[in-house]
Amino acid sequence: MTSPYATDLDKNPANYQPLTPISYLERAAKVFPSQVAIIHGASRWTYSEFWRRSLRLASALAKLGIGKGDTVSVMLSNTPPMLEAHFGVPMVKAVLHSLNTRLDAPILAFQLDHAESKVLIVDREFSRVVKEALALASVKPLVIDFDDPEYGDDAPYPRHERIGTLDYEEFVASGDEDFVWSRPDDEWDAIALNYTSGTTGNPKGVVYHHRGAALMAYTNTIHAGMGRYSVYLWTLPMFHCNGWCFPWTLALTAGTHVCLRWVRAKAIYAAIADHGVTHLCGAPIVMSALLNVPSADKRTFPQTVTFNTAAAPPPESVLAGMADAGFAVTHLYGLTETYGPSVVNEWQPEWDELDKEARAAKKARQGVRYAALEDLAVIDPVTMERVPADGETIGEVMFRGNIVMKGYLKNRPATEEAFEGGWFHSGDLGVMYPDGYVQLKDRSKDIIISGGENISSIEVEDAIYRHPAVSSCAVVARPDEKWGETPIAYVDLKPGETVTEEDIIAHCRKHLAHFKCPRTVIFTEIPKTSTGKIQKYRLREIAKEL
Amino acid sequence: MTSPYATDLDKNPANYQPLTPISYLERAAKVFPSQVAIIHGASRWTYSEFWRRSLRLASALAKLGIGKGDTVSVMLSNTPPMLEAHFGVPMVKAVLHSLNTRLDAPILAFQLDHAESKVLIVDREFSRVVKEALALASVKPLVIDFDDPEYGDDAPYPRHERIGTLDYEEFVASGDEDFVWSRPDDEWDAIALNYTSGTTGNPKGVVYHHRGAALMAYTNTIHAGMGRYSVYLWTLPMFHCNGWCFPWTLALTAGTHVCLRWVRAKAIYAAIADHGVTHLCGAPIVMSALLNVPSADKRTFPQTVTFNTAAAPPPESVLAGMADAGFAVTHLYGLTETYGPSVVNEWQPEWDELDKEARAAKKARQGVRYAALEDLAVIDPVTMERVPADGETIGEVMFRGNIVMKGYLKNRPATEEAFEGGWFHSGDLGVMYPDGYVQLKDRSKDIIISGGENISSIEVEDAIYRHPAVSSCAVVARPDEKWGETPIAYVDLKPGETVTEEDIIAHCRKHLAHFKCPRTVIFTEIPKTSTGKIQKYRLREIAKEL
Repeated sequence: MTSPYATDLDKNPANYQPLTPISYLERAAKVFPSQVAIIHGASRWTYSEFWRRSLRLASALAKLGIGKGDTVSVMLSNTPPMLEAHFGVPMVKAVLHSLNTRLDAPILAFQLDHAESKVLIVDREFSRVVKEALALASVKPLVIDFDDPEYGDDAPYPRHERIGTLDYEEFVASGDEDFVWSRPDDEWDAIALNYTSGTTGNPKGVVYHHRGAALMAYTNTIHAGMGRYSVYLWTLPMFHCNGWCFPWTLALTAGTHVCLRWVRAKAIYAAIADHGVTHLCGAPIVMSALLNVPSADKRTFPQTVTFNTAAAPPPESVLAGMADAGFAVTHLYGLTETYGPSVVNEWQPEWDELDKEARAAKKARQGVRYAALEDLAVIDPVTMERVPADGETIGEVMFRGNIVMKGYLKNRPATEEAFEGGWFHSGDLGVMYPDGYVQLKDRSKDIIISGGENISSIEVEDAIYRHPAVSSCAVVARPDEKWGETPIAYVDLKPGETVTEEDIIAHCRKHLAHFKCPRTVIFTEIPKTSTGKIQKYRLREIAKEL
Repeated sequence: MTSPYATDLDKNPANYQPLTPISYLERAAKVFPSQVAIIHGASRWTYSEFWRRSLRLASALAKLGIGKGDTVSVMLSNTPPMLEAHFGVPMVKAVLHSLNTRLDAPILAFQLDHAESKVLIVDREFSRVVKEALALASVKPLVIDFDDPEYGDDAPYPRHERIGTLDYEEFVASGDEDFVWSRPDDEWDAIALNYTSGTTGNPKGVVYHHRGAALMAYTNTIHAGMGRYSVYLWTLPMFHCNGWCFPWTLALTAGTHVCLRWVRAKAIYAAIADHGVTHLCGAPIVMSALLNVPSADKRTFPQTVTFNTAAAPPPESVLAGMADAGFAVTHLYGLTETYGPSVVNEWQPEWDELDKEARAAKKARQGVRYAALEDLAVIDPVTMERVPADGETIGEVMFRGNIVMKGYLKNRPATEEAFEGGWFHSGDLGVMYPDGYVQLKDRSKDIIISGGENISSIEVEDAIYRHPAVSSCAVVARPDEKWGETPIAYVDLKPGETVTEEDIIAHCRKHLAHFKCPRTVIFTEIPKTSTGKIQKYRLREIAKEL
């Protein structure tokens, strides 16, 4: 017998609408039209203007024929067009593909081709490398230049020549602000595409859906303690997991985005003091920059600023310095595949009473699931059983819930592998404590996190191996006060060869983006197991002691 | 050609889980196990205890064979079992049916039969009326008594004899705290059932789903400004739209529930001062009670308490008094069908500068949609077109989104009527202002809201008509300082009959719950249109002037 609760109680447009974060911006624009949504240099946009510009962008894209499932790529800094793209692109059911502005031309070209990019919006800061990428790529997207009027004459990097056929401002102006935006047909539809750095072979395209973006926005407000009219400073690149989904989050609370093209301590302090910033996110390197700033560049401010950081847990001395400077630091953990951080080191008030060492041990843990993540577990990947919650038994950290990607674009084998057994396999090894907090113990994927960017050690090794004098090599992370980690290369030369550290680094720069190149090269015999496997843990120990 | 974004990117347990608020309590119990979840008199339960008691309740229900689609009814005050039922019942995929404790036996019996109730948990305060109801009802649910150890000897109402076959505490103790709870098979599955007062004929059973409850919890935290460790005082009955979904909301922020069996100003002030209450909700009558309390019963407190109120907009004098007493009042609007309030009078800071009259005009508006409501409109129900947003053109207020009910239980015609044209028809008439704020102008359903309870004028009229001396009658709302509104009856007697006001009221009490009976009876000729329709608006005008 069918239950009465399942009879004549179906979905209809009145009681079921696909979740989408676009709806949050629509509400903010209607309810708080004159609230400042975006600050960029001397420019200001209200929520009403932000909404209407996003509609114009959508309308202009629609006029080009861009629609469902089309990819719109952007190579942009943390500037207003990047925020507009987070709404304008999905308004026509298209997918926002954010390029990491630090990548080199071959990887950019690969991504554009793989994503089948139809439109590419590019900031003039990056025009040169994008031009190279387009020369390598097979796709021929329509290129739109963004010529930032707030670029500034004191810019640390030059503006390059325009390479596009359209100007961003003119393109937006050509759109209609009365454009009727499209809800996704299904909340499972794609909203964004972000490529991982890739550990072996080519980068993988992580696909986000409207449902996850909408839920991530809610859960972010809770874990960031983000109330109405919060002021958010853009120190975290928006090309990283869509800025951990904060472009969508702030629309929920009618918060103010403070754009920041270049992450410099002086500018951060100025923004905090001048605009009343309440929240920012960033890699540990941003904290170092804030603490090591010349006193002339430092500013004081009355508010306590919430600083969300991911990657390595911040050392006690850094946390103490940050507290003195007016910041409350929260330690997060996640992956591109989980919409950015989805694990938080929820700090228990009673831990403040612990001694320094015990407090540091609590800080070192990655933590517990976000409210919108349904489960976080440490699992034996062979048996798929949870390991004992004893803080000692190592397993793979796995995720389950609605803020986990749809999968990897056009990569069924990788998607199936990632979701094997109904869990997302992070590739990170960790332990579960009796209180339910997870701590990472090692990364199985050989990733080096430098300045908040993931570097695949295997990709660096591949580059080094192309040098004719190299017999064997291994790349691991070296702890670094400023960058968190940097790549260090151990190189074994072929008999009779003589090569310098500088030679190897210069060689790498020909094949890799600058930030991926080793900072240190040590010529040595590579320690291997009896079966010939490189003992990376020993190399990591050596790196730590350097 | 199929889009690559729709190929090999399907749902699986790793990236898709049905939304449910149960997950929030599970997280709170794991992450904040020793945080106080519930205060009730001298008793305290931590989040760990709250969770384990909910699991025990679920386990005990499962042992009885209660499962998917079964109805568990409760006749409970704002006490811990009511909170436990909000999680324990859906943990076995059953549906929580909350009975309004102010109703009389025939309506309770109707609801139990209509809901096909399997289990009924009843507080001893209500045992007598429930016993009568069970005598009238066809269903024979298993009855469980809740004998509240915090009842208190100073109780204003007596505890009646036990009527059940089981004791609640023993029943919970018989459950297993290691019980494995069931996620809903689908987030569209029913979680709760709440009957409307019914305007014509029988009450309608409004069915909520897990998806809506989970989203309402998120959106509540935003509109109530509810941060971590908020302290929520239960002045709003949990049987009203599941306490506007706050039982589920607080689990998101690990807030503390302060139970309150009887809403008395002295107890409210004591709770606020003693427990640091940050939030409460209630009908305007709660505000009156707080303002008219003897000074000996009043307490001062350092925090500003958020007071959410629905129904009629509070008058300026009440708001000023509330501000002086330490409360910030937010005016909300919604219906049982929209999970409680889903419209908020978002107060714009610049409105503080307006003069008294203009400010009152802004306060009188119901407002704008919650973030989780996708659309709120004033629509001409004939053409289904939106009326002009001119603040003058009257239409029907309609809702659309994920916090709108599944429909009415076993009532396809009413469900279809309510959702006609893809919108939920509220039955309330209103206008839309140019700034997107809605204001109610009249209720098309002839509802009187007295002390926060809905009274159907038609139901009262039906009772009066049963009196043999009555020729014609009409019941409308009379404005009342204490209750908001009370029913006033206009009665036209048959020729030669003489009946007093007291006679009519005594007659009504035989057929209706006490609170539904008219407070005033006026014997007069009923004004009618030329076609014989009663001119209720004229009667409302007379009532206003009394």
